[in-house]
Amino acid sequence: MASNSNIDTEGATQHLRDILKLDRPGNSTEEQTLHCETVKPASALVCECVAGSQLGCIYIDTSCLTWEGQPFQGKGAIMEKLTSLPFTKIAHSITAQDHQPTPDSCILSMVVGQLKADDDPIMGFHQSFILKNINDSWVCTNDMFRLAIHNFG
Amino acid sequence: MASNSNIDTEGATQHLRDILKLDRPGNSTEEQTLHCETVKPASALVCECVAGSQLGCIYIDTSCLTWEGQPFQGKGAIMEKLTSLPFTKIAHSITAQDHQPTPDSCILSMVVGQLKADDDPIMGFHQSFILKNINDSWVCTNDMFRLAIHNFG
Repeated sequence: MASNSNIDTEGATQHLRDILKLDRPGNSTEEQTLHCETVKPASALVCECVAGSQLGCIYIDTSCLTWEGQPFQGKGAIMEKLTSLPFTKIAHSITAQDHQPTPDSCILSMVVGQLKADDDPIMGFHQSFILKNINDSWVCTNDMFRLAIHNFG
Repeated sequence: MASNSNIDTEGATQHLRDILKLDRPGNSTEEQTLHCETVKPASALVCECVAGSQLGCIYIDTSCLTWEGQPFQGKGAIMEKLTSLPFTKIAHSITAQDHQPTPDSCILSMVVGQLKADDDPIMGFHQSFILKNINDSWVCTNDMFRLAIHNFG
């Protein structure tokens, strides 16, 4: 595992800034829409999506979660699933992350990393999610999670 | 590798249909918006996104591709990248796939699988993309690809 420490919020912020080209004047609709000041909270949300902290704040009633192929819709169902996962402690490490603006001014992220739940062996995972700005708050409308055990048929 | 054969379009179609709950009357906005007849072409696009066939048809000038962390924007830049990849033949196998409707009536897909390029060893990959219906055609607005070598820091 690259690191068991907390996720690098500053690094993720800069990565988002770089990918979304937010340090230079933008000409495209995407660049104009995704203002610089939105990157920091969005980046923190990326970390929360992965780390599972304060998840209740980021899902809404239309959010979708697909967890290891199982679909859940709505904040209630998603929180029920996430809070019933069978471990008492978990550490995450992000090893690669990609971010793109979408045509609808959301952010699509794909995160790859490793996790360690309790005393289980370290496992790879990949997660994709969409962050959307609604009324000046960033929420997670779509979230998909898979352990990295499915690349091998 | 699970299979070197062509991707299972019919299976992918049924999977999309199941996930999007298109076989039963829908009450949610997402279910009403994503009509049944759109699933088949969308599913074919999932296969094209992964298999790399007829890619020129599915990217548009605002499409984003992040390939192994490198960003490309626009049909021209994306096609230039994809057609310059250093292999002469490639076989894909999808081992897991997830699909969700997004709030903006797009489809978010996360696909996990294996590929074999020329005589290289089989490698895992993961890919996330967004399909959007514009003027009755499905296009790929966002595409992210990573080989499964980044889970191990």
